Amino acid sequence: MTLQAIALNGSLKAADAEETSSTDRMIGVIGDELAKHGVALGETIRLASRNILPGVSSDEGPGDDWPDVRRRILAADLLIFGTPIWLGQMSSVAKRVLERMDAFLGETDDQGRMPSFSKVAVAAIVGNEDGAHSVTASLFQALNDVGWTIPAGGACYWVGEAMHGTDFKELPQVPPKVAETAAMLASNAAHLARLLKAERYPGT
Amino acid sequence: MTLQAIALNGSLKAADAEETSSTDRMIGVIGDELAKHGVALGETIRLASRNILPGVSSDEGPGDDWPDVRRRILAADLLIFGTPIWLGQMSSVAKRVLERMDAFLGETDDQGRMPSFSKVAVAAIVGNEDGAHSVTASLFQALNDVGWTIPAGGACYWVGEAMHGTDFKELPQVPPKVAETAAMLASNAAHLARLLKAERYPGT
Amino acid sequence: MTLQAIALNGSLKAADAEETSSTDRMIGVIGDELAKHGVALGETIRLASRNILPGVSSDEGPGDDWPDVRRRILAADLLIFGTPIWLGQMSSVAKRVLERMDAFLGETDDQGRMPSFSKVAVAAIVGNEDGAHSVTASLFQALNDVGWTIPAGGACYWVGEAMHGTDFKELPQVPPKVAETAAMLASNAAHLARLLKAERYPGT
Amino acid sequence: MTLQAIALNGSLKAADAEETSSTDRMIGVIGDELAKHGVALGETIRLASRNILPGVSSDEGPGDDWPDVRRRILAADLLIFGTPIWLGQMSSVAKRVLERMDAFLGETDDQGRMPSFSKVAVAAIVGNEDGAHSVTASLFQALNDVGWTIPAGGACYWVGEAMHGTDFKELPQVPPKVAETAAMLASNAAHLARLLKAERYPGT
Repeated sequence: MTLQAIALNGSLKAADAEETSSTDRMIGVIGDELAKHGVALGETIRLASRNILPGVSSDEGPGDDWPDVRRRILAADLLIFGTPIWLGQMSSVAKRVLERMDAFLGETDDQGRMPSFSKVAVAAIVGNEDGAHSVTASLFQALNDVGWTIPAGGACYWVGEAMHGTDFKELPQVPPKVAETAAMLASNAAHLARLLKAERYPGT
Repeated sequence: MTLQAIALNGSLKAADAEETSSTDRMIGVIGDELAKHGVALGETIRLASRNILPGVSSDEGPGDDWPDVRRRILAADLLIFGTPIWLGQMSSVAKRVLERMDAFLGETDDQGRMPSFSKVAVAAIVGNEDGAHSVTASLFQALNDVGWTIPAGGACYWVGEAMHGTDFKELPQVPPKVAETAAMLASNAAHLARLLKAERYPGT
Repeated sequence: MTLQAIALNGSLKAADAEETSSTDRMIGVIGDELAKHGVALGETIRLASRNILPGVSSDEGPGDDWPDVRRRILAADLLIFGTPIWLGQMSSVAKRVLERMDAFLGETDDQGRMPSFSKVAVAAIVGNEDGAHSVTASLFQALNDVGWTIPAGGACYWVGEAMHGTDFKELPQVPPKVAETAAMLASNAAHLARLLKAERYPGT
Repeated sequence: MTLQAIALNGSLKAADAEETSSTDRMIGVIGDELAKHGVALGETIRLASRNILPGVSSDEGPGDDWPDVRRRILAADLLIFGTPIWLGQMSSVAKRVLERMDAFLGETDDQGRMPSFSKVAVAAIVGNEDGAHSVTASLFQALNDVGWTIPAGGACYWVGEAMHGTDFKELPQVPPKVAETAAMLASNAAHLARLLKAERYPGT
């Protein structure tokens, strides 16, 4: 069974910016590991390039790109939620997506299951320094609230030493510990997504 | 000495929306108390009505409303940072403002002082249920990182019982405990802002 | 296949205290729901009644009760992590257990799997007012770091209105929303624990 | 006017342990800077060496060391709250102290002022990797809830690169950025503590 993954990149920069993205690099590291377990990473949606309106419904009206992004996310089995860290916290662009997923709480089926049920989410987090555990906490709490399942070791991150300014994309190679973490994350996420796709949560 | 306060409302709704805002009500409660201590609350900036671009510089180019909002904030002595709670966290609209303040870190004077130094910030937080302490934590950490001073008891909030849906604006009256908290917050914030305006941090 | 659950109660009060525990009541609500799905809740360990020494190893020497508690936790398939909220955060007693689980990071098997791998954890959180989402975030981040898997909707909580003082144990009945949440949590947790027990994470 | 500071060290190790403490080193860095501003750092209380009982009152009975620690903290003008990071969070030993300060909420004078009012708190945080911003957030929210005032730039921290194991005490010298941060923190904290000692919050 081949599984489908999709990634969100919560960078503050739009995709047509000249600069490449450290978050994209981390998503790539995870995507490569997932491929070894039969999970195909399709597109990465650069959130800052889409017009995702503020709100907590699934469609905030004319010009809102969320309905399209939402549909793509829910077509996949596994979500890689990528975000940079600013001031020790996830980006406002990433946060906006969580808010829009709040609507899942009211979109349950007859067994009370949200559209995200039986799908797996993992975190891809990068920053110059500090904040990865806190972003993981905020992400997992919100994603889990709205129905996503978190596999063991569901976060992969890189940050530099305190108060440093190096970007993940500037590192000559992926640090071995990060590579190991990504490998285990991918193994766990693929396994769990496969189990849940074969046997969905029954609901209540 | 009369002091000047300004408020930010991080509601997901623009100001021209038909609905009133619970966050505005909380800002009003605090503003009324500040007035008793010689602090005049000027405008409340409804962030969702302004085009604050994603980024971490003080000017992200054409169409960016942040330079104007930034100027207004820094013209005041005291900031009331208002935000609703979604999924237990501050709004993406509020978060965006924190990101833009990241630039303060590089805008220091010869004594190393950021533009926010010697100014006081307080939090005005509302939600249907739960999340106020967490939003307070995220706000105070980020605001303090970028130079704001937090007076004793610097947050005033209201949330309903777990999993409830009542809005603060629907309450027939402001709960006595909230009113007491706002009164003390205002007394402390006014006192501290006055001390710091008279004797600014000397820097290094 | 019958599954075994164990619960931790992070109350600040020891079990021989005269007062009953709101956290125990929430654990009971979840335990009753789990029973409907073939999961037997064995003991609830009142952490404040055990002498769990500070540290980050699996045995901190003479008088340390953690080795016994650790063995009991790892003998179960599913963990209900219960904690009260103080100042919007989990208790120090609950926090101590997370610290002791830090040792799991170094106790991996040949496939890199921690002792907690393929086991499911859920949260049972109670407080007078506010803090449940934040405690959920801290708990899920830490538990997931050390190998636990979090099912969809993995937290059940109750808190009162802002600045109120009612305890969960004083409520005449469990609020319907809390009961619904517990029912869904139990359905999801039992399903996931069963899948993972039958097919463990393969590791790397 | 000479001011008095006191420090808490939330290390998991008792003071008679053979190992020195990274948290102590960070407290020392801040203490040295405070001395340049007329603030004398008296003792550092190694919390793990004292028997601080779980609870939320100011005296939990026989054997409780909190009443003594509490008295010493409140005799000072400025508190350096030091803690290591474990799993991205403050230590259980540090957390215990916050819980005990919960009692301040009920120990107000006729003007509604807690015993901590008009006193300044700063954070000294160290870890092998990541977590400083999150610990700052949790600390500032809780300390501010119970009456402490937070000066601009009130946290000084060091953490290593993601997933690294170096301790702050092992660094050959204090990194320049950390030294700069400590210098500014000390300047701000001393200034604010001096202002608030001369003119206390008036309360309500």
